Amino acid sequence: MFLESKYNTLKKLQYAVDNNLVDKEIMYFVDRINEEDDYYTTSSCIGRCGIMEFPKNVNTKIYSRWLGKWHHYATSEEMMEALEDASDNYDRLYFVLNSPIMHIACKDAVSAKKLLEIAYHNGLKASSVKSLSEKRYIVEFLTTMRLDAPIGYNGKLVVDNDYLNILLDEGNLKLMKARDMLHKVYLKFDEEFNL
Amino acid sequence: MFLESKYNTLKKLQYAVDNNLVDKEIMYFVDRINEEDDYYTTSSCIGRCGIMEFPKNVNTKIYSRWLGKWHHYATSEEMMEALEDASDNYDRLYFVLNSPIMHIACKDAVSAKKLLEIAYHNGLKASSVKSLSEKRYIVEFLTTMRLDAPIGYNGKLVVDNDYLNILLDEGNLKLMKARDMLHKVYLKFDEEFNL
Repeated sequence: MFLESKYNTLKKLQYAVDNNLVDKEIMYFVDRINEEDDYYTTSSCIGRCGIMEFPKNVNTKIYSRWLGKWHHYATSEEMMEALEDASDNYDRLYFVLNSPIMHIACKDAVSAKKLLEIAYHNGLKASSVKSLSEKRYIVEFLTTMRLDAPIGYNGKLVVDNDYLNILLDEGNLKLMKARDMLHKVYLKFDEEFNL
Repeated sequence: MFLESKYNTLKKLQYAVDNNLVDKEIMYFVDRINEEDDYYTTSSCIGRCGIMEFPKNVNTKIYSRWLGKWHHYATSEEMMEALEDASDNYDRLYFVLNSPIMHIACKDAVSAKKLLEIAYHNGLKASSVKSLSEKRYIVEFLTTMRLDAPIGYNGKLVVDNDYLNILLDEGNLKLMKARDMLHKVYLKFDEEFNL
């Protein structure tokens, strides 16, 4: 049953790869995990900085939108250009750094525990088991790197360009560190499973 | 074995309660969980805003320190006073909102799954299983509410007082929302286990 689910999930992944719908930069780790019978990836993102707009008087969970989000290390010009797309009357704008994240289905408690401990003990301290059932355990790989700063209220920026550039520099730096942390866990995973 | 660990942990909790070492505001939920044989709390915090200083040229994980942290809804004056304690030559200052958090030992996979699903489906979307073993599963209750904004570099603030007050207002608002979310999960937990 686990292998059947894995087969179906990997078929969808292959479709996404063929259609350029995946973060290419994280595929080295995705592919390595999927070589192991007890595991398969269900989703992944190499991390990103971005600017999120939350509109007024509506459910912000549904209607929030990215003015820009960058999996590459964005420039100040790209950020300023994104800000020009802001609505006249937003409720809030946030500058956000999202850590790299991976979700990995594990065959059982033993394989989930092993994977979680590799992640946790090699730097991905925000990792955890996000759900569990008799069919599979889902382990989430996550770093503690983050940035969530309000930059606008009621349709107006509340910070200047200097501070926006500080946020972007800090965000890019943290993104780089977080990706290094993920790579370290990849090396450890590869070592453990090549024994 | 599980009940023996629970007994020992609750003895330590009682010591902490007797010596005013606990967040009183979260005890309503801590005590309710500890009424159930399959669960016991191992740590908890009702959430807080604060300002963290990271020094230069040392391991910031060890040497970072709070200039101020507030489990109550802090005032602008308290924040400004805390900022006066900053070192002359810090590397970074951050304004931080930490969500309420609870760690709950669960007897087995079934009890952990039940608890995690109550939390997740009632608003605590960042909840997860943080560790698992044959002895116990540790479930973490956590909201997605957060704020992590750099406010100083190289011994100098990079934001003005208006922005600091915006961060504090936003932090206090999110803290209040996060506590409401935790309370909602308490009500659901109480309902589920009173059946």
